[in-house]
Amino acid sequence: MPNTTLEEKCVNTIRTLTIDAVQEAGSGHPGMPMGMADAAFVLWTKFLKHDPSHPQWHNRDRFVLSAGHGSMLLYSLLHLTGYDLSLEELKNYRQWGSLTPGHPEYGLTPGVETTTGPLGQGIGTAVGMAIAEAHLAASFNTSQFPVTDHYTYALISDGDLMEGISHEAASLAGHLQLGKLICLYDSNNISIEGNTNITFTENEEKRFEGYGWHVQKINGHDRNAVEEALQNAQEKTGKPSVIICKTHIAQGSPNKHDTAAAHGSALGEEEVRLTKENLGWDPDKKFYIPDEVLQHYRKAKENGKKWYQKWNNLWDDFAEAEPQKAEQLDRQIHRKFADNLSDDLPEFEVKEGGMATRNASNTVLNAIHKQLPSLIGGSADLAGSTKTILDGTGDFGPDDYVSKNMHFGVREHGMAAAVNGMALHKGVIPYGATFFVFSDYARPSIRIAALSEIPSIFVLTHDSIGLGGDGPTHQPVEHLASFRAMPNALTLRPADANEVSWAWKAAVEYQNGPSLIILTRQNVPIFDRDEVADASLTQKGAYILADSAKETPDVILIGTGSEVQLALEAQRKLEADGVHARVVSMPSWELFAEQDQAYQDEVLPPSVKARVSIEAAATLGWERWIGSEGTAIGVDKFGASAPFKKIYENYGITTDRVIEEANKLLA
Amino acid sequence: MPNTTLEEKCVNTIRTLTIDAVQEAGSGHPGMPMGMADAAFVLWTKFLKHDPSHPQWHNRDRFVLSAGHGSMLLYSLLHLTGYDLSLEELKNYRQWGSLTPGHPEYGLTPGVETTTGPLGQGIGTAVGMAIAEAHLAASFNTSQFPVTDHYTYALISDGDLMEGISHEAASLAGHLQLGKLICLYDSNNISIEGNTNITFTENEEKRFEGYGWHVQKINGHDRNAVEEALQNAQEKTGKPSVIICKTHIAQGSPNKHDTAAAHGSALGEEEVRLTKENLGWDPDKKFYIPDEVLQHYRKAKENGKKWYQKWNNLWDDFAEAEPQKAEQLDRQIHRKFADNLSDDLPEFEVKEGGMATRNASNTVLNAIHKQLPSLIGGSADLAGSTKTILDGTGDFGPDDYVSKNMHFGVREHGMAAAVNGMALHKGVIPYGATFFVFSDYARPSIRIAALSEIPSIFVLTHDSIGLGGDGPTHQPVEHLASFRAMPNALTLRPADANEVSWAWKAAVEYQNGPSLIILTRQNVPIFDRDEVADASLTQKGAYILADSAKETPDVILIGTGSEVQLALEAQRKLEADGVHARVVSMPSWELFAEQDQAYQDEVLPPSVKARVSIEAAATLGWERWIGSEGTAIGVDKFGASAPFKKIYENYGITTDRVIEEANKLLA
Repeated sequence: MPNTTLEEKCVNTIRTLTIDAVQEAGSGHPGMPMGMADAAFVLWTKFLKHDPSHPQWHNRDRFVLSAGHGSMLLYSLLHLTGYDLSLEELKNYRQWGSLTPGHPEYGLTPGVETTTGPLGQGIGTAVGMAIAEAHLAASFNTSQFPVTDHYTYALISDGDLMEGISHEAASLAGHLQLGKLICLYDSNNISIEGNTNITFTENEEKRFEGYGWHVQKINGHDRNAVEEALQNAQEKTGKPSVIICKTHIAQGSPNKHDTAAAHGSALGEEEVRLTKENLGWDPDKKFYIPDEVLQHYRKAKENGKKWYQKWNNLWDDFAEAEPQKAEQLDRQIHRKFADNLSDDLPEFEVKEGGMATRNASNTVLNAIHKQLPSLIGGSADLAGSTKTILDGTGDFGPDDYVSKNMHFGVREHGMAAAVNGMALHKGVIPYGATFFVFSDYARPSIRIAALSEIPSIFVLTHDSIGLGGDGPTHQPVEHLASFRAMPNALTLRPADANEVSWAWKAAVEYQNGPSLIILTRQNVPIFDRDEVADASLTQKGAYILADSAKETPDVILIGTGSEVQLALEAQRKLEADGVHARVVSMPSWELFAEQDQAYQDEVLPPSVKARVSIEAAATLGWERWIGSEGTAIGVDKFGASAPFKKIYENYGITTDRVIEEANKLLA
Repeated sequence: MPNTTLEEKCVNTIRTLTIDAVQEAGSGHPGMPMGMADAAFVLWTKFLKHDPSHPQWHNRDRFVLSAGHGSMLLYSLLHLTGYDLSLEELKNYRQWGSLTPGHPEYGLTPGVETTTGPLGQGIGTAVGMAIAEAHLAASFNTSQFPVTDHYTYALISDGDLMEGISHEAASLAGHLQLGKLICLYDSNNISIEGNTNITFTENEEKRFEGYGWHVQKINGHDRNAVEEALQNAQEKTGKPSVIICKTHIAQGSPNKHDTAAAHGSALGEEEVRLTKENLGWDPDKKFYIPDEVLQHYRKAKENGKKWYQKWNNLWDDFAEAEPQKAEQLDRQIHRKFADNLSDDLPEFEVKEGGMATRNASNTVLNAIHKQLPSLIGGSADLAGSTKTILDGTGDFGPDDYVSKNMHFGVREHGMAAAVNGMALHKGVIPYGATFFVFSDYARPSIRIAALSEIPSIFVLTHDSIGLGGDGPTHQPVEHLASFRAMPNALTLRPADANEVSWAWKAAVEYQNGPSLIILTRQNVPIFDRDEVADASLTQKGAYILADSAKETPDVILIGTGSEVQLALEAQRKLEADGVHARVVSMPSWELFAEQDQAYQDEVLPPSVKARVSIEAAATLGWERWIGSEGTAIGVDKFGASAPFKKIYENYGITTDRVIEEANKLLA
């Protein structure tokens, strides 16, 4: 047996815990944790400022495992350093109900900062965390009281760097000169299909230098080199850092190191034994942690306690010296809302020509911003079109981390991941904006927000064929249905300016996933709320906007967004013909589905089977609300390039069509 | 008026046509066509080998306008060089029914090689075209008969290069050493939100050098420099080329050049006049094309005729010298199928333990490959898991363009765009594979395939919570619904190995959009086709797999994919209890929706209202098939990390649940 130092034992404990857990589960990715154990050990024991007893401590360093498949690296470190994650949990890796799922999940496991696995997103999320840190530091710190002052570390892999989002995120981080973002890149030249030379031969040094990063390249198994590189990275302010760690995948495994076989499969009983022997471990012991190793790692708890206490003292002094700042920052960190948010929502008067809901959204956004200065965000190079510019603040950029108008560039995916990271960091309420159709580009990160219940806000304008001349490449059709099918995603498609007010309120208050505020490019009428129901009913997801004269209507017309006006007009015309129609505005399926059955039945009485829905989007799913006997008017093909009224006409999204379908149902 | 040369007039004609068309439409993007008119003129008149009379000529150079918003550049050139696109069409820019939509659409306008607008994808598609060219050249050309031998040009913009997909595509192209891919990069430092210095400050030279590209940087208005650079790019074999053209957006507009105002809005009447005056144009003339300009551009027709004829002669000689090769290539180009494709589909016998549909897919893929050697494709670093490796051929790579197993790397979006480009090029039937959940990463390009009716094939495995331990980050839930909502996308989720055979056939034969073959990771039974209906009925989208003893069943159980077995088992148990159930397997909603009403009613008799659907996915949309009175069993929340049977049990995706819901409906 080799005579190993304490450090080596500490590193090898990560390796052996990993191979035992993966072997026990019968699946998993042992190679990365074994390869990066050295570098992770150095980072976690010599650099990372955290307190395992307070995983939500505001000023902790963030650690993002972008290569989420190497989850056992993180679980090992969390257990070893004393987070509330028992060894039993590690033994239950990938089992039902455990805190150790195949890929790390935020909200489930203490110390997991973000959900990773879908590659590349961890980098983007880390960029968002670093942005939030920079913004809060610039906005609240004083020279005496650096209450927000931490690093964001990310461990990234070859797979992460192949993904497009890594480009968007790294380019944005370089531009923003996020000096406190430090990435350890596990460059092991192995991906699942084999050696990376079969497809991934780019020069990462040049690439990241091109992005304006500080680049170092080291032997990732040389712990002194790792330490030195991390030191250099910290000292290099003004540039994000990437440390290219050349490593051997499955380091320690005599027969599987440097092979793709160790990437995504258990080593096998025999190789586990051989690896343990090779590492000086007792091959008969499973999940073995030498006492001195645990002791060494557990210093994190003492250190954490000290750091945490020191910071709390700092905070107390800060609160005394700068009470207003401290109160505001505290409100932001804990996402406390103004009590009177509803009072301050804009009310819109009827206006000749109406108003695009994207324009109303700008008014509402700015009104809310006055109550909620933690709002910060921007657009993927479409700010003028998405109407997401905040008044009274400038452009967030490398020379100004205080201002709140962010320029994400044409980087929808990077934007969404950054917005997630900002929300996860806490202290800000972030939003990102683009055209609804380009939500496709951001979809993987919107999904992560949904899965992890991250309250990211997305403003998605140009929401249908109603955008006109830009044509079908820009006209969403299937997007509403696609997000309605996504668990935890809250879709909001307000019908007029006043519904926009309440949609924004719902979005800001929703905490269990992303909110999608879906808005028109074109003008729509502002309904006269003296004649129709109060817009605050938007919060119920659907409501009777305008009832029929008859108590039980002959037919129910259900619309969302820009099509509600067509239902309203149809109602008037039908009424003139003696047909009594009820108009239901349904800005949010999810909110409506949450209402009790009594309310749902009040809005959509089960006895009324004649129902027509109208929405300029795919009809998929509308049967849920209109039943088997109803008719869904929608768009089940791609759009067209023309002035929007022309398209609506040709696609049959018209008042006449509503009337026709209603009459058909009643015939 | 300045005294301008013919060349200058030619260039300025692009500018004036652009500003007139955008002004007339009231919307559009004049800036890019004005800025890139010089470079495009040089490319189109001095380099591009094409025949405006034969836009589908196999050996034409491809030109991809990745910056699709600058569509007027392309429409101007197509009209000027003599494609079947009248001046009237240019006057009807962005109007209903015109051939000149806001963004170029493949299949609509002769000479448009691919649909662009959603940024970044044009580059990815061009990479696919260059791949197809390289593969066909390597596979069929002889030194005497280079029947496939053309360049692929792409015009790309700042916005393209901010998108993540540009990274994936460029990295792949660099690795593959696609020397005949040449990109003109319009580096005008202006994007919609303003100067690119607000967010996009990376060093593109370093970045592309990092990718292994040949990089040149020139003044994009210096036509001699453009010519020289294109010459160099052609001479530089073994590396793709990017020519960074420093340009002024809206060059020629006295007040709007170099401004973001000219990016996405009409110049305005006054500025249009001033621009024309500045360019030596009569400001009162609209859509004016000087005779000598038209004459000059129309040389393309004579040249095209000559090239086309020359190539046809070459082809004739080739066909004589190499009749087998010529016949095979001809079959591939025209996507002719083996007549006996059905005969050669594998039939699978019942097998102890069953078989994962992904495994069956590998057998089928290889059987079809024997009939269709034009099949080529691979996976985004998951070949072993997606089971998409072709036997009897090696790895496609820079040293071997003949082999057909492609390694796309962890680049799902780049893969999908490349697959689209390969399909658009013709001569190959391309496929791309990944886990179903990662279709999100590729979604924008799958949408382009749907919109443009590109027959790309996507193999999407690990299709539900059934994948087990990898957990919710890897378990698709909303994806089936999201694609069912996408027009033209064909989803196929076969229930067993024999349905896989027919699903593949349907996928290969479908020409109106992308096919998605959705497959399990876990084993599922192979049904005994002597006892249940023939698997060829898969082609109808849904069919009676096993009928009830009673002519009109009491209840219909509808399943897809891995859940059909649960319906079958429930049927047997229900029958034992005297409940007569019919089992319908529904591998494809789209194919079933295409069947006539009589067939649909035969499978799902309107009189039978008791219907239970079971599918381990979001239930959204199932009401379409089960009606208001039916019950949809599904997964309307995110998954979990555990062995798959445990998850199925806990999520209520079980035979018992089917029985329970059926009995409830019948009670």
